[in-house]
Amino acid sequence: MPEMAAPESLPIRPVGCIWAPMSSIVYEYPLPILERHLDTFGHVNNATYLEIFEEARWDAITRGGYGLDRIKATGQGPVVLECTVRFRRELTSRVNVTVVSRVTGYAGKIGRMHQEIRLPDGNVACDADFTFGFFDLQKRKLIEPSPAWLATFGLTVEDWQAGASG
Amino acid sequence: MPEMAAPESLPIRPVGCIWAPMSSIVYEYPLPILERHLDTFGHVNNATYLEIFEEARWDAITRGGYGLDRIKATGQGPVVLECTVRFRRELTSRVNVTVVSRVTGYAGKIGRMHQEIRLPDGNVACDADFTFGFFDLQKRKLIEPSPAWLATFGLTVEDWQAGASG
Amino acid sequence: MPEMAAPESLPIRPVGCIWAPMSSIVYEYPLPILERHLDTFGHVNNATYLEIFEEARWDAITRGGYGLDRIKATGQGPVVLECTVRFRRELTSRVNVTVVSRVTGYAGKIGRMHQEIRLPDGNVACDADFTFGFFDLQKRKLIEPSPAWLATFGLTVEDWQAGASG
Amino acid sequence: MPEMAAPESLPIRPVGCIWAPMSSIVYEYPLPILERHLDTFGHVNNATYLEIFEEARWDAITRGGYGLDRIKATGQGPVVLECTVRFRRELTSRVNVTVVSRVTGYAGKIGRMHQEIRLPDGNVACDADFTFGFFDLQKRKLIEPSPAWLATFGLTVEDWQAGASG
Repeated sequence: MPEMAAPESLPIRPVGCIWAPMSSIVYEYPLPILERHLDTFGHVNNATYLEIFEEARWDAITRGGYGLDRIKATGQGPVVLECTVRFRRELTSRVNVTVVSRVTGYAGKIGRMHQEIRLPDGNVACDADFTFGFFDLQKRKLIEPSPAWLATFGLTVEDWQAGASG
Repeated sequence: MPEMAAPESLPIRPVGCIWAPMSSIVYEYPLPILERHLDTFGHVNNATYLEIFEEARWDAITRGGYGLDRIKATGQGPVVLECTVRFRRELTSRVNVTVVSRVTGYAGKIGRMHQEIRLPDGNVACDADFTFGFFDLQKRKLIEPSPAWLATFGLTVEDWQAGASG
Repeated sequence: MPEMAAPESLPIRPVGCIWAPMSSIVYEYPLPILERHLDTFGHVNNATYLEIFEEARWDAITRGGYGLDRIKATGQGPVVLECTVRFRRELTSRVNVTVVSRVTGYAGKIGRMHQEIRLPDGNVACDADFTFGFFDLQKRKLIEPSPAWLATFGLTVEDWQAGASG
Repeated sequence: MPEMAAPESLPIRPVGCIWAPMSSIVYEYPLPILERHLDTFGHVNNATYLEIFEEARWDAITRGGYGLDRIKATGQGPVVLECTVRFRRELTSRVNVTVVSRVTGYAGKIGRMHQEIRLPDGNVACDADFTFGFFDLQKRKLIEPSPAWLATFGLTVEDWQAGASG
């Protein structure tokens, strides 16, 4: 089932506002849409948008100092719990998009990240909200964010505690 | 960023209830989780869940008489506008899951499908709600569902009209 | 079947007929070509054929008693060293193909597998020869095939020794 | 570069040195190995090498003026007939490789491309030879290379005629 552009007038539901706003690092990840991203309809399929968002998150946490090596070394890493994705515009090959990612809230063990795939003209082709946690890979359970993990997004323990009570 | 099981106690938001319930065909798609589904953490990654849901939707509409050939012949087909996915349990290789898919509402040009990936013990590893439309591939715009498209899910025009006013 | 680094000194096999024929188990793996297999040209792309061959090899070794769990438990598993693939016919969606796989030779540390993707009419859409080895995942080096590994293909140590001298 | 059906009568090239050497453009495509390239063994799987080679070929022909838009506009494009791939070294995430691609021969309707995935230290992780043709997408048959297609690789009709007789 292909994914295509939602009409402008589609009532986009407002992002839930129970989260205290946070000032995390805003990561930008430039990416050309390639032929391998295209499905048989000649555009990017909905599952592929998720791959693109994931690739941008890996880029962000790697640049922030918490890449795969660190996850393996510490035995702690992020886990996606839920996502909501809005497909707004078609993407076709050789368009240079930018994925913009930032943490918008972190309450207790549950964080929230907003991501957008932006077209060269600034329009948003797709945006998504991810609910995530920090995970102990051995004990298989969610844990509170470590200072190093928070620092990946430019956040401090104080930011997190404020978010928790926000 | 890997996806892992949400703790049981994670407050799962209730599925929005503005949709009139519909009695669509419930499609079941059995699927073994294969080695190619696994990421470097040895389990199924969040983007891959979307591929699995998509594969099950293609299976459903193909069995319902509205597969790729029909989409090409009519120039009309489905389009995903938005999705919300909840990752509840880890999936690893050689588990035989069943993807259960059904249309839960159709109001005007906007339909809604619920999908679940069920484990052999009946527990839900992942569930998702997709908002979709029916699309004119030439005019690039959403259109009202055709009788043939509605019939794919065992729905009639009357069901749809009732849904629209539900 | 994962691919791993060949040791520097690996004698790359000359193409040709130095292999003694072997009577391994012939594994058949039925598979429908799905919409997700299609590229923007509406048919299966060359890299995807390799995925299909790999999926069939995993099916074969899992059924033969040497699946992922066994590889992890023993720390020994297969490694692809080289492949030659001949793309003979287009594949499009909803064609039910059968992947046929068999070991055609095993000389010393180097085995050879032939695989074919067969159409419903018996024609071969694609065929491939894989050169592979048995690998110690800890020591990162090729080793001689264990009896259990040979048995995966219905081969004995005697078959292997005959192949080595064939 | 899509893969399509080779005609029944296609003379499958013998491996060896019957090809006159050609001086085509040498395309270099830098690429970081990402987490999404990794399989459950933590390294790049054999099918993924083929995706990487394909991505580099698309980059080469797009830069050479014969990208997807041109293929669609002319109804003529490349088709992979056969490939031989040698897996020499493991690839893991965040290694910056360079894919080097050049045409090494073109005799009649059959061209040959050599590709290498080079590590930062210059060692080759994987190399491959692709046999390809130029294809009429409507008539579904191999055709002689057009001047524009040859120019994609810095070749002239004279080069091609010399190759054919080489």
